[in-house]
Amino acid sequence: VADRVVVAVDAMGGDHAPAEIVAGALQARDDGVDVLLVGDEGAIGPLLPRKASIPVRHAAEVVADGEAPAAAVRARPQASVVVAVEAVRDGAAAAVVSCGATGALMVAAVTRLGLVTGVERPAVATLLPRSDGGRVVLLDAGANVDCRPEQLLSFARLGSAYAVALGVAVPRVGLLSNGEEDGKGNQQTRAALPLLRGASGLHVVGNIEPMAAMAGGCDVLVCDGFVGNVLLKAAEGAVATVVGLLGEEVSRSPTGSLGKWLLSPAFGRFRRKIAWDAHGGALLLGVAGTVVVGHGKARAAAVRAAIGVAHRAAQHGTVAAVRAALG
Amino acid sequence: VADRVVVAVDAMGGDHAPAEIVAGALQARDDGVDVLLVGDEGAIGPLLPRKASIPVRHAAEVVADGEAPAAAVRARPQASVVVAVEAVRDGAAAAVVSCGATGALMVAAVTRLGLVTGVERPAVATLLPRSDGGRVVLLDAGANVDCRPEQLLSFARLGSAYAVALGVAVPRVGLLSNGEEDGKGNQQTRAALPLLRGASGLHVVGNIEPMAAMAGGCDVLVCDGFVGNVLLKAAEGAVATVVGLLGEEVSRSPTGSLGKWLLSPAFGRFRRKIAWDAHGGALLLGVAGTVVVGHGKARAAAVRAAIGVAHRAAQHGTVAAVRAALG
Repeated sequence: VADRVVVAVDAMGGDHAPAEIVAGALQARDDGVDVLLVGDEGAIGPLLPRKASIPVRHAAEVVADGEAPAAAVRARPQASVVVAVEAVRDGAAAAVVSCGATGALMVAAVTRLGLVTGVERPAVATLLPRSDGGRVVLLDAGANVDCRPEQLLSFARLGSAYAVALGVAVPRVGLLSNGEEDGKGNQQTRAALPLLRGASGLHVVGNIEPMAAMAGGCDVLVCDGFVGNVLLKAAEGAVATVVGLLGEEVSRSPTGSLGKWLLSPAFGRFRRKIAWDAHGGALLLGVAGTVVVGHGKARAAAVRAAIGVAHRAAQHGTVAAVRAALG
Repeated sequence: VADRVVVAVDAMGGDHAPAEIVAGALQARDDGVDVLLVGDEGAIGPLLPRKASIPVRHAAEVVADGEAPAAAVRARPQASVVVAVEAVRDGAAAAVVSCGATGALMVAAVTRLGLVTGVERPAVATLLPRSDGGRVVLLDAGANVDCRPEQLLSFARLGSAYAVALGVAVPRVGLLSNGEEDGKGNQQTRAALPLLRGASGLHVVGNIEPMAAMAGGCDVLVCDGFVGNVLLKAAEGAVATVVGLLGEEVSRSPTGSLGKWLLSPAFGRFRRKIAWDAHGGALLLGVAGTVVVGHGKARAAAVRAAIGVAHRAAQHGTVAAVRAALG
């Protein structure tokens, strides 16, 4: 575990920036995390309580949603996301969080921090809750929509290193597929499976279906970014549907209000457990620095969670683990 | 609505065949569906109550799981799945259900019933519950793992025709993607979107994310079979995880048992609503007959539901609707 780590937060990125970002940063500060806010001082200042001990690094510009990432980062070197990433490069922070456009964060991270040797493209890694109480590292969760089989192998290495940093001794790596047999899958995964099986240092369980993975069948779930993004959002959608239906049913029940009241502590814990929001941040694996992609729609609680993810990843030396696994 | 329709059921296909298949068929019979059981008379007979009025058509052979579909169907013309499909061809039944290997059912259906004119490959269409109470036709849910953009257009037409048969006047077609903007998606979907938009007779809403689709954003959700299968199983996995966690939380709550008892009618309705199992069957769209792919792990309740799907599809003339839409 490293010394006190500072997390730089892009205060201007996200649908609810800067108000909810700053609110989340204040919550994280109360959790004991040192935060460095980056963005327009004039906009951030009024959001801070008078005696807030959160430092602010001014950044005059902002990358808007929908801008071409590479062009935007090139055109606006004073954008908050760029300045926040540079705080990591300069050593002012050990990690950075942005809820702004993923593409811009990725470009800023790759150009300012560089890639870990051996990595061709970074991948977005998300932690998915499992029914056995564990978590599965899902990657790529959206950075690379079209992948060659070799890229899936690279994701397997990155994800495995992340799982080790999270405390899994020998991470079981599964290749996301539509069936378990070796012959299942599409062209991409059928070509990738032998590459994974042939790689040293990986414990590959083979093809795995989403349900088996979520039940605890693997610690690292590998897929391309299109499929990973669909998986993640389908799971979120299903949970939202189920929770909505349950609420409806409970409120329709004649004995429902009393029952609901009696169960409210259970529902509260349940809500916190399934709050995918609370898991918040996805790690950008493969860049030479701790970079967390927050949710664009993040409100304070999700921002706080994303800052927590960044803090833990920096403390546990995830980048060093990735470097060691690939070196 | 057509006359009384008979549903042929492959009694020997599925992990729990023939016992659970026959049990599900008896339940469907009690729902008022005419069922024709197809399989080994010696195995089925003892499972039927003495006075059961369910006819049995003998089939001496069985296609085992994991067999190469085309070879298996060629080698064993007396396999239960083949004989069940032939009951539709011969007019003895209006629809067929099998919980056995999807590939074998597909080969049997294509070779015995043929394809609707204009269809190149059949697609598996599943109904996914939406949080607004509706259903979205998801296809392809697993038959075609690698698809050209033209195939996605064909799925859009098939799914739209199915939605019309289900009573949706102007089905809104969405292309499953990792973002809503036209530029989002992978190579396959970016090439498919303009084809969909340019097709006459389709009401295309554009790219759609899983959460938006499940919230009611479209009536038909188009994707390749690999992605569709992952989506479906991710949603199932997430629901299972959430329901498991909820049960745990409720049983841990000190006031939980009483609350649970008071809420039990609500939980019961909820369970039935989210029982993806109960939605049971997926329709094989594009073949010239009503063919339902049941779940391999189906027990009686899911078999009954799959028979119900087949019955309704036959009654509502889904095949005729597909033919009309493509003609």
